[in-house]
Amino acid sequence: MNEHFMKRAIELAYLGSGFINPDPLSGAVLVKDNIVLGESCYRTFGAASAELEVLSYGLCDLSGAELYLNIEPFGNKAKLTELIRVIKDRKIEKIYIGIEDRNPRKEIHFIEELKHLGISCELGILKDECEEMNEIYSHYIVNKTPYVIVKWAMTLDGKLATKTGDSKWISSEESLRFVHHLRQRVSAILVGENTVRKDDPLLTTRLEGVQISNPIRIIISKYGDIPMEAKVLQVDESTKTWIIASELISKEREESICNLGARILKLKEKNGHIDFNKVMDLLGRLGIDSVYIEGGSAVLGSAFESGCVHKVYTAIAPKIVGGNKAVTPVGGNGIERMNDAIVLKRLSYEIVGPDVIIKGYIY
Amino acid sequence: MNEHFMKRAIELAYLGSGFINPDPLSGAVLVKDNIVLGESCYRTFGAASAELEVLSYGLCDLSGAELYLNIEPFGNKAKLTELIRVIKDRKIEKIYIGIEDRNPRKEIHFIEELKHLGISCELGILKDECEEMNEIYSHYIVNKTPYVIVKWAMTLDGKLATKTGDSKWISSEESLRFVHHLRQRVSAILVGENTVRKDDPLLTTRLEGVQISNPIRIIISKYGDIPMEAKVLQVDESTKTWIIASELISKEREESICNLGARILKLKEKNGHIDFNKVMDLLGRLGIDSVYIEGGSAVLGSAFESGCVHKVYTAIAPKIVGGNKAVTPVGGNGIERMNDAIVLKRLSYEIVGPDVIIKGYIY
Repeated sequence: MNEHFMKRAIELAYLGSGFINPDPLSGAVLVKDNIVLGESCYRTFGAASAELEVLSYGLCDLSGAELYLNIEPFGNKAKLTELIRVIKDRKIEKIYIGIEDRNPRKEIHFIEELKHLGISCELGILKDECEEMNEIYSHYIVNKTPYVIVKWAMTLDGKLATKTGDSKWISSEESLRFVHHLRQRVSAILVGENTVRKDDPLLTTRLEGVQISNPIRIIISKYGDIPMEAKVLQVDESTKTWIIASELISKEREESICNLGARILKLKEKNGHIDFNKVMDLLGRLGIDSVYIEGGSAVLGSAFESGCVHKVYTAIAPKIVGGNKAVTPVGGNGIERMNDAIVLKRLSYEIVGPDVIIKGYIY
Repeated sequence: MNEHFMKRAIELAYLGSGFINPDPLSGAVLVKDNIVLGESCYRTFGAASAELEVLSYGLCDLSGAELYLNIEPFGNKAKLTELIRVIKDRKIEKIYIGIEDRNPRKEIHFIEELKHLGISCELGILKDECEEMNEIYSHYIVNKTPYVIVKWAMTLDGKLATKTGDSKWISSEESLRFVHHLRQRVSAILVGENTVRKDDPLLTTRLEGVQISNPIRIIISKYGDIPMEAKVLQVDESTKTWIIASELISKEREESICNLGARILKLKEKNGHIDFNKVMDLLGRLGIDSVYIEGGSAVLGSAFESGCVHKVYTAIAPKIVGGNKAVTPVGGNGIERMNDAIVLKRLSYEIVGPDVIIKGYIY
């Protein structure tokens, strides 16, 4: 076993980021006598699996070869049966796997099947990296609600913007690039209507030299109260927008928004608010496996209060703006006692340009 | 030259922290043939200098020995002349020095004098570390106003406390220990009256296994509106308290505070406020070379707006409390445009327990 080949499988799997949701990111490396015979990854939703593809390479003798997979192969019975047959026919000796497929409804337990055939399997190679790269898949396949990642950039004195609402730009160009990489991973980006009104963001992924997939832009706007010329309402086939509104939104508003090509999803209000858990249930039913919430303060407050957040990224810029009236990242009601604070787990820190980006998990 | 010996001189010099202000932290290591013959540091205000002390060690032949000093020796003409005489008499071959003494009124330029005598001097060994350790001295000796360090601990969502004002405890025990080390370095700790009313802090230095010196506790309180039973008003010879008040403070208040042993310093109000620059001028005249401001929000706001802050420490705890009404670190008016933000320089980051501590300089 050589971890280097698993690292390569992980690297390949990441190439599918943003193109294969809600399927898992999968990479495969085929090795014989420490020489790579083939590499593949699952790069387009519905395409052939990385595992089958890599095994079809070449006509050379694969007996005694080893296969490195970041995740247990997924799919229906027919597909997995075919894969197992090829593995057997081509006399693959050993398969190294990062993590199991957590699908509770899977039709074939791939690892068990191989064991029955006398083909050796080792599970747990670079487990943590493999877990993280497929945390969206592993959550969604079990829960059918989106995996929720929130992100904000703030000044060193805890402000999202100055007292006048000016937030351009808090963080460095390096941090902004980092953000675009995060956007690339998810099915949807969500912001509140205040953010649309104040910042008029485009909310698309912009990465030089990389093929990009634009997540669906989701705006929480109870009564559709956003300017018709907002950039998020410039919709086309590759940049979609969904508005989450109250069922009490006016017919006129609904029509003008729909005429621009955006889709309206209506939910019942609860005490005058749209319930975040209801939003997540709805998005999950619509096949959205992951949501990346970028603010502002009110939406972040609701997200944390509803308990739907899984992962947090905070970029801290070494700047001071001051001001009692400047907005801070997580608004809403907030808690009363410091002892009841949400404490993030599995923390990591990264210096990105002049900023520090802190990553942590709620669960 | 061996940097290891300069590191040791720095280590020794730090032992004087809190006991020799406003003099510089000074350590000396005497080396011959790569063997340490003597070590010394300046540990009590007014005591013999580290350099003279180390040269008085032993009766052995010091010819060809080397002396490592983190800072150019300071003092009056008589003291430095005596030191130069001893260096010459004992035939010290070379002197390695971290940084120069920035005293604009110094009576003898030590390094030049030695060069005239043909004794070799090399300046700038571990310069950055030597600069930082004596940044208080180097500032005060030139400007005669205190070097101002501010520090706050906040949650990952930029709050100093929950909406009810509860701040116990934001940061980890490890971070609290780190804070006590910072307190140990300065002549005074400054907080606002709100912090006294809300948190009733003791503001003393508590470090296990270390001899401590308590900085003077300074409270900004225009009309002395703090509870008479506040911990900071429990005063004795080793834990002093000064109250910075308006000249309009009532005679009764002034008397009751003075009766508890605290000292009152009165300043003219300017537009209903006490001017922070005036505070710093006054403290400088009273021999305070360094002030460590621990909050709260209003005092930090005034400090930044007055432009008197030199260095910032921020401890960020991976906790989320939320709330529009929770207080953020730097209050006051604040600026309008993000482009006008104060940008910290010479940043460094330290992971302390679960927290990140960011250090940066304003100048």
